[in-house]
Amino acid sequence: MSRLAAADRIAAAVALDGCRPLRSLPGAFYGDPAVHRADVEVFWRRGWVFAAHSCELAVPGDYVTLSVDTDPVVIVRGDDGGLRAFHNVCTHRGTVLCREEQGRVGRIVCPYHQWTFDRSGALVSCRGMPAELDRSDLDLAAVHVEEIAGLVYVCLAAEPPDFGRARALIEPMARPQRMERARVAAVRDYSIAANWKLVWDNNRECYHCNVNHPQYIQANFDHYNADDATPRIREAMAAATARSEAKWAALGLAATHRETGMACFPDPDHDRWFSANRTVLVDGWVTESLDGRQVAPLMGAYPDPDVGTLRLRTLPNFWCHASCDHAVTTRLLPDGPTGTRARVTWLVAADAVEGRDYSLEQLLPFWQFTSEQDWDLCSAAQRGVRSSGYRPGPLSPQKEYNVEAFRRWYVERLAAEVRS
Amino acid sequence: MSRLAAADRIAAAVALDGCRPLRSLPGAFYGDPAVHRADVEVFWRRGWVFAAHSCELAVPGDYVTLSVDTDPVVIVRGDDGGLRAFHNVCTHRGTVLCREEQGRVGRIVCPYHQWTFDRSGALVSCRGMPAELDRSDLDLAAVHVEEIAGLVYVCLAAEPPDFGRARALIEPMARPQRMERARVAAVRDYSIAANWKLVWDNNRECYHCNVNHPQYIQANFDHYNADDATPRIREAMAAATARSEAKWAALGLAATHRETGMACFPDPDHDRWFSANRTVLVDGWVTESLDGRQVAPLMGAYPDPDVGTLRLRTLPNFWCHASCDHAVTTRLLPDGPTGTRARVTWLVAADAVEGRDYSLEQLLPFWQFTSEQDWDLCSAAQRGVRSSGYRPGPLSPQKEYNVEAFRRWYVERLAAEVRS
Amino acid sequence: MSRLAAADRIAAAVALDGCRPLRSLPGAFYGDPAVHRADVEVFWRRGWVFAAHSCELAVPGDYVTLSVDTDPVVIVRGDDGGLRAFHNVCTHRGTVLCREEQGRVGRIVCPYHQWTFDRSGALVSCRGMPAELDRSDLDLAAVHVEEIAGLVYVCLAAEPPDFGRARALIEPMARPQRMERARVAAVRDYSIAANWKLVWDNNRECYHCNVNHPQYIQANFDHYNADDATPRIREAMAAATARSEAKWAALGLAATHRETGMACFPDPDHDRWFSANRTVLVDGWVTESLDGRQVAPLMGAYPDPDVGTLRLRTLPNFWCHASCDHAVTTRLLPDGPTGTRARVTWLVAADAVEGRDYSLEQLLPFWQFTSEQDWDLCSAAQRGVRSSGYRPGPLSPQKEYNVEAFRRWYVERLAAEVRS
Repeated sequence: MSRLAAADRIAAAVALDGCRPLRSLPGAFYGDPAVHRADVEVFWRRGWVFAAHSCELAVPGDYVTLSVDTDPVVIVRGDDGGLRAFHNVCTHRGTVLCREEQGRVGRIVCPYHQWTFDRSGALVSCRGMPAELDRSDLDLAAVHVEEIAGLVYVCLAAEPPDFGRARALIEPMARPQRMERARVAAVRDYSIAANWKLVWDNNRECYHCNVNHPQYIQANFDHYNADDATPRIREAMAAATARSEAKWAALGLAATHRETGMACFPDPDHDRWFSANRTVLVDGWVTESLDGRQVAPLMGAYPDPDVGTLRLRTLPNFWCHASCDHAVTTRLLPDGPTGTRARVTWLVAADAVEGRDYSLEQLLPFWQFTSEQDWDLCSAAQRGVRSSGYRPGPLSPQKEYNVEAFRRWYVERLAAEVRS
Repeated sequence: MSRLAAADRIAAAVALDGCRPLRSLPGAFYGDPAVHRADVEVFWRRGWVFAAHSCELAVPGDYVTLSVDTDPVVIVRGDDGGLRAFHNVCTHRGTVLCREEQGRVGRIVCPYHQWTFDRSGALVSCRGMPAELDRSDLDLAAVHVEEIAGLVYVCLAAEPPDFGRARALIEPMARPQRMERARVAAVRDYSIAANWKLVWDNNRECYHCNVNHPQYIQANFDHYNADDATPRIREAMAAATARSEAKWAALGLAATHRETGMACFPDPDHDRWFSANRTVLVDGWVTESLDGRQVAPLMGAYPDPDVGTLRLRTLPNFWCHASCDHAVTTRLLPDGPTGTRARVTWLVAADAVEGRDYSLEQLLPFWQFTSEQDWDLCSAAQRGVRSSGYRPGPLSPQKEYNVEAFRRWYVERLAAEVRS
Repeated sequence: MSRLAAADRIAAAVALDGCRPLRSLPGAFYGDPAVHRADVEVFWRRGWVFAAHSCELAVPGDYVTLSVDTDPVVIVRGDDGGLRAFHNVCTHRGTVLCREEQGRVGRIVCPYHQWTFDRSGALVSCRGMPAELDRSDLDLAAVHVEEIAGLVYVCLAAEPPDFGRARALIEPMARPQRMERARVAAVRDYSIAANWKLVWDNNRECYHCNVNHPQYIQANFDHYNADDATPRIREAMAAATARSEAKWAALGLAATHRETGMACFPDPDHDRWFSANRTVLVDGWVTESLDGRQVAPLMGAYPDPDVGTLRLRTLPNFWCHASCDHAVTTRLLPDGPTGTRARVTWLVAADAVEGRDYSLEQLLPFWQFTSEQDWDLCSAAQRGVRSSGYRPGPLSPQKEYNVEAFRRWYVERLAAEVRS
């Protein structure tokens, strides 16, 4: 049974009527509160939401919290070493249990009346309640949780979508990076004045990169699309890929994206909301840093800096660029119809020591610049798409194939819900 | 005729369908804008709302203002010494008349066009209007006002609920405190990030006191409920009550609450939205101060510090704890679906002089700590009850009988309206 | 076809049912979000909105931007010297194009993907799009723009209301002021906590002037209405008008408003949403300054300071008071149901030099005081009209004839829409 209110369903259906192939979405998708409530139900409460890094949950009792729309969630490392997630809400009168972003608990004790839950969410104490109380429904409400290669996901749905396919793809690709044994070197939180889908529209094309990302384009081949990759560029990428191939094969790595331009993602026809690729960097760049030189010790299983760049993405809220020496992840969370909170996290090898092995001045700028450049573009888009003068415009099949893929993925899933 | 819009009535009715005995309220009651509009109509515009202390309105022309939701109200001491209250809105074009929180006026003059009203609200001048203007409807719109023992209440309803029963109970109990001749020693205003009903849920139980109120529990027996009051505690309270009894009888005081735990309130079966008790403090405490020692001169008619504690409460927005030397009142006002403004006021004897007879450092901490501890818990509850993972949980008959009583009082009155 | 949503139409129709002649508007008109959406559609997206001064757009490529509700607009001086206005929104994916309030551009280049438009709005470059793209619909969406005597107006409607009558009246009256060749001496932006109609209610009467505008009333005859203009005052105005008459005739100026009190405006019977008058100032005042003395060099075609005061007004958002030496314009823009943004601009002769020919300390106070006094009254009105105790009150036919005229103009136009 859908929790979607009838009025929200109708508003979403009306908005869907305005959608066309290879056209940007109508303005209602970027600000109408009813459409946003539909988004929360269909994408944020049913999808697999990236939540945290497992290295932030190192030992039993470690917890992290986050809020998905109005739903506070807590993830705890259990006594058995496994992760568990719960609605971070007391089963007594609904009080938020763990109020910090991170911490460590023996048991989870409600600050209000000290109802106490163990690390598996079981109610172990509720002093003051009658002895005959039926406790069968008073354990913490579980939230589905999964971990792949150090990435922790939660799903609020009663019946989550299949996670196995995502795991099968991502785990082997991400394993050499060893993010589960990484250290969080830095976190930057952003409040983006744009609907979450505008952030994805931005993420899914490098059509905007040439002018807006002077740092990013030095390191990558993403912005060379089929229509403007010169023979010289194509040859450069092919040569770099060929050079890496033998070495990578020995390491068990593979260049899965071998052409200029961005890899295709998402794939609405096969409901692929996840992706993982490894691809080469421009010659002379061993990492995504300002000058392409290594900025931290090698991570994980990499014996050599020449490992290209590993990219991971999962809808509705995660992407990661990982190089030989560090990984940068971005987590999105919705903040109302016209806002998105973004957390960018820099990971380095677990035993790297700041000041000795790396400095934030060298580690951060590449993705700090690139991220902030993007947030600025997203907010400029948000200001325009709510205009009565805005009309959905054409998407370029050569440069915005992934914007179109995201649009289709989004529209088809929303339509399946509101027209059901 | 109800002013409640049809859509708000329906939203409230749907929410009411989710209410169960001895269960906390569904989440819609703590944030849905439509339910909040119903609350404003049924509880805030029809109930008796505590507004001010009559000692703040000492002489004719003194006024105080407050806003109940979007309704500005002014209360004025009239030439005959009586209090009158009005919508603080000019009958010309609706401008707010008295813009300060407190002041003194000869006549009430609108700042816009100087329409002038006397202290009984009668329009006495409207220069520039035609001579033939029908003035019959242009006096200030009266708001019902009542005073009990120095406490000033207003009711915005055309036909207010009976006030006589409240007066009959409270006036004799509160008379010895002489709050009408008190001095306001301090005021603290708070913005609580919680729906007003969560503030009452908090106020109506001392189940949360043990851990959260280290100051409060030293002075009081409230947190010893039937299930955890040891024989020693019961005997201590009985002994204290017995010791006070003879002395109090001579003073015309009576210990009306003689058992550990909180007195029962409200009483939905008899629509008792008001209450008054006197009860003993813990031995060694003559007042609610950090160390139990007197922090100001004796108030009112008390010849002796041993008068226990007087508690007054009225729904939807008032409670008071009064000791021999000072009284502390709390006034709530709604601030949208998820906020409440609270004003805590400390009263001392009218002739007490700060610096000589009392200091704020001694007077304030007990209730400043206790209040702020409560507001923090209320905001933690607010964060949780809007979660899709929140389910109304069980109330303890032994510890939360008053939360249940408040729930029933609230639900029954709202249901009577939306189902009428 | 109206863009007005059915629910907004119904809300506006219900509110209209409460309107009565010579009564202020019901409270719903000053805060209900649905009524506000109707206002935006009917008045702000269909009316001629004052946007800027043409002297701010001196040479080809100069642009100014503003937002009418959620609609960003850009006005550009074209290569042919004419003005053009556009939705400031890229026809690709809706990004806001020009992000500054003022600037100069060769071509308009979208910051996102560098789609490029010439100064006539034509798409001249969209690199990366397929060659076969149908560009017929990808020029910038034009917004109607008109200029009268240095005042630039835009209209967002597909078919704007007639502008010719406004031009025919205003242009000859305003021509001698030469505002198109003026210099912007100062700009002050205000955020008024009041619905835009309360700002007009305030503007349309001088009933409030005596007490609230001590500076303004020294210079003007506006506040002497038919009922309180003494014979001495009438004679003073008649004498001043007679004295000016011969001299003005020689200059081609005429005193079109010759009586005390405010000129009638608007005229709902003839849909006159524009007005222009010239009238005398009080003897001894040659300009609207604190002491009546000239505060800047003569403007425009005036050979002599004795030119009285020129007043221009256009609904929904503009008024101007111009004297021999400077002009002050006020531009309103809606900021939600309960807010209005106001920009007050002081113009002086183009060749006047600050510090040498004028000082802001002398130029600004008269209208800075008067404006801020008005904004304060508007916000006091806003606080009252949302009360459940507010009832529409009587308007004085002698003092508030223009408030009534504005009310009728507003109500009739809204009714024509929502009942169509």
